Amino acid sequence: MEHTLSKSFKIVENAHIDQPKGFTAGGIHAGLRKSKLDFGWIYSEVPANAAGIYTMNTFQAAPLEITKEALQASDQLQAVVVNSANANSYTGEQGYQDAVQMQQLTAGKIGVDPSLVAVASTGVIGEMMPMHLIKQAIARIGESEAADDFEHAILTTDTKTKHIAVEVEVDGKTVTIAGAAKGSGMIHPNMATMLSFMTTDAKVDTASLQQGLKQTANQSFNRITVDGDCSTNDMVLVLANGMQQNETLYPEHPEWEQFMQAWQFVSRELAKMIAKDGEGATKLVEVEVEGAASEQDAAGLAKAVIGSSLVKTAIYGEDANWGRIISALGTCGIPFDKNGLSLSIGSEQIIQEGQLLSFHEPNCVEELVKDTVHIFISLKEGSEKATVWGCDLTYDYVQINASYRT
Amino acid sequence: MEHTLSKSFKIVENAHIDQPKGFTAGGIHAGLRKSKLDFGWIYSEVPANAAGIYTMNTFQAAPLEITKEALQASDQLQAVVVNSANANSYTGEQGYQDAVQMQQLTAGKIGVDPSLVAVASTGVIGEMMPMHLIKQAIARIGESEAADDFEHAILTTDTKTKHIAVEVEVDGKTVTIAGAAKGSGMIHPNMATMLSFMTTDAKVDTASLQQGLKQTANQSFNRITVDGDCSTNDMVLVLANGMQQNETLYPEHPEWEQFMQAWQFVSRELAKMIAKDGEGATKLVEVEVEGAASEQDAAGLAKAVIGSSLVKTAIYGEDANWGRIISALGTCGIPFDKNGLSLSIGSEQIIQEGQLLSFHEPNCVEELVKDTVHIFISLKEGSEKATVWGCDLTYDYVQINASYRT
Repeated sequence: MEHTLSKSFKIVENAHIDQPKGFTAGGIHAGLRKSKLDFGWIYSEVPANAAGIYTMNTFQAAPLEITKEALQASDQLQAVVVNSANANSYTGEQGYQDAVQMQQLTAGKIGVDPSLVAVASTGVIGEMMPMHLIKQAIARIGESEAADDFEHAILTTDTKTKHIAVEVEVDGKTVTIAGAAKGSGMIHPNMATMLSFMTTDAKVDTASLQQGLKQTANQSFNRITVDGDCSTNDMVLVLANGMQQNETLYPEHPEWEQFMQAWQFVSRELAKMIAKDGEGATKLVEVEVEGAASEQDAAGLAKAVIGSSLVKTAIYGEDANWGRIISALGTCGIPFDKNGLSLSIGSEQIIQEGQLLSFHEPNCVEELVKDTVHIFISLKEGSEKATVWGCDLTYDYVQINASYRT
Repeated sequence: MEHTLSKSFKIVENAHIDQPKGFTAGGIHAGLRKSKLDFGWIYSEVPANAAGIYTMNTFQAAPLEITKEALQASDQLQAVVVNSANANSYTGEQGYQDAVQMQQLTAGKIGVDPSLVAVASTGVIGEMMPMHLIKQAIARIGESEAADDFEHAILTTDTKTKHIAVEVEVDGKTVTIAGAAKGSGMIHPNMATMLSFMTTDAKVDTASLQQGLKQTANQSFNRITVDGDCSTNDMVLVLANGMQQNETLYPEHPEWEQFMQAWQFVSRELAKMIAKDGEGATKLVEVEVEGAASEQDAAGLAKAVIGSSLVKTAIYGEDANWGRIISALGTCGIPFDKNGLSLSIGSEQIIQEGQLLSFHEPNCVEELVKDTVHIFISLKEGSEKATVWGCDLTYDYVQINASYRT
């Protein structure tokens, strides 16, 4: 079942990844890109319990291996270093050694054990990391203390930074959960070309953190698609440094649900920001399926609609071509009774339990010109539901991806 | 196993769907489209043994139901009527009755039983068929006897007609196999927004014709993708009228393989024409996977590559961004040993058994500027292979689909 978001938490305006107590972040221009920031870090004053999830791609990039090994060794992280422009993916043994060196040099620079340092990279696959630039960059960690610089440094073809923070009362303390992310291309359920980092000053035990991350990711980062491709470098990390000194949180804790709602909100908002800023996108598209036999079916049907190039181009063209939605639903291999299908675009209903209504096309177009387009699909198979997010397919998507490297 | 094409057949230059003995075809402007031909027919002097395959989409359009019922009733067809511009899909009981009427009026006009008439439609989903125009058109069947008109009348966003014919010696007779198709958008394995009609003057029993059609379609029409969507109207029909009086063909016949090779060639060439003329496409892309554990795995991996929007845009941009090929292979859920992977673009090898070679990028770009781009992937999982076809993703794809109806 999905969570219904209530208002048990408060959004902190204009807050960044460093909002929770004890976290700092920064970013610099290391020279991997022509002029944009391209190297960033997150640092926690004390070791933080940490958890991660990683791309399902067979080809996992070297930094993911390093980070997984670090988390297996210590269950904690104190720093994360990230570069853009080069993915350090499909770079073989040398790439692995380069990622190890990034981890070790960073650990040395900030004075912690290498097992407390995570490494993340995003960019072109199959090119060796320019380690002379990376070494110079690591020596400069701490030079910037602007979290906004970190949020810029991790971007690739993103057009804007993605960050959010919320406060929630837990055990009489106000704890903060913050997040920063990058997305843009290769975004698809079961991760994305997406890096997402979340920080909190709540105290959460590591096993519960891992369990909570899996749960929130399944209903946020795994519910977005831009172009159906998964990257080799996708990773979501969460660091909980416990500096608010609350009683340790775990699923049986009376305020766990409250904490999870706030965390879920942070994850979903980051995911929606990624979808909305998909390469070339002009609109956020939200597809909701209810009345499905299982949550998996609901998500699968919704993803079939959001993943259809024909639906995406029709939305870009603000064309009420609902036949493409029907066609996408019918082609995804998830069975359902056609006579139980209802379909609306925004507030305009088109199909009611299998019957085509004489819908008013201009009303439908009114829904399509909005910044966020909602597609509602209702079935009669059961009571499960899911919401997914994506974007339209535009000239700019083609432009960006036909010339990404050149 | 795939067929290796030998030269046991001969291509007939500039031949059309009416090339086999006893077939005629034509097309007219019925007024469903502004000025282009939009209504066509194929006719056989005698009832032909016939077989069909249909879209896997849950929502099958009315004409497919009618055609399936006709083939179930008689195993034979003598005529096919086709309209473009309107798919007669998601049109409910009225749509079904309209398709029945198209069948009955056509049967009356040409003087055959309705069970010998197939109906096919392609175009916009969810709009009622303008039956007053269709009735006028049926009354004009026979007015044109140009197969080229038929081949034009079935097109939607296609930029050119698709037709081919070959001759093959069977049982001492020269039999002809011909085909005509339309494709363009919504093209994906397990059919396509594709109509494909094949005719032959060979005598083939119906069960063998159905079996042969399934076999050839699996290695041709089911091996192409333009945008990953399947239409509600996809259909492939074959009519064998036996007018060459050969001994009836069936799989145990000594010349069945020879006949199948010719038929397979016709199917593949039509499929490749469809892929190459995909909406907005500038290039045909051919992806071959060998050394897979099964043909299904090989086809699945190849389709993952050809279906990736990122690969397709890179090819459009003539950018040797092979990392996207790797990423697409790694994300499709079909397991393989990374150390057994070899990859070439055209004659330029990039990966040799898991090792990245220092390939020469300008050579690779030379392969990408060609009209047909070949991607070869070799694994060490087994001895099965598959080839799939697709196209690049371009500005024009977006333009065509953002404004298809308007």
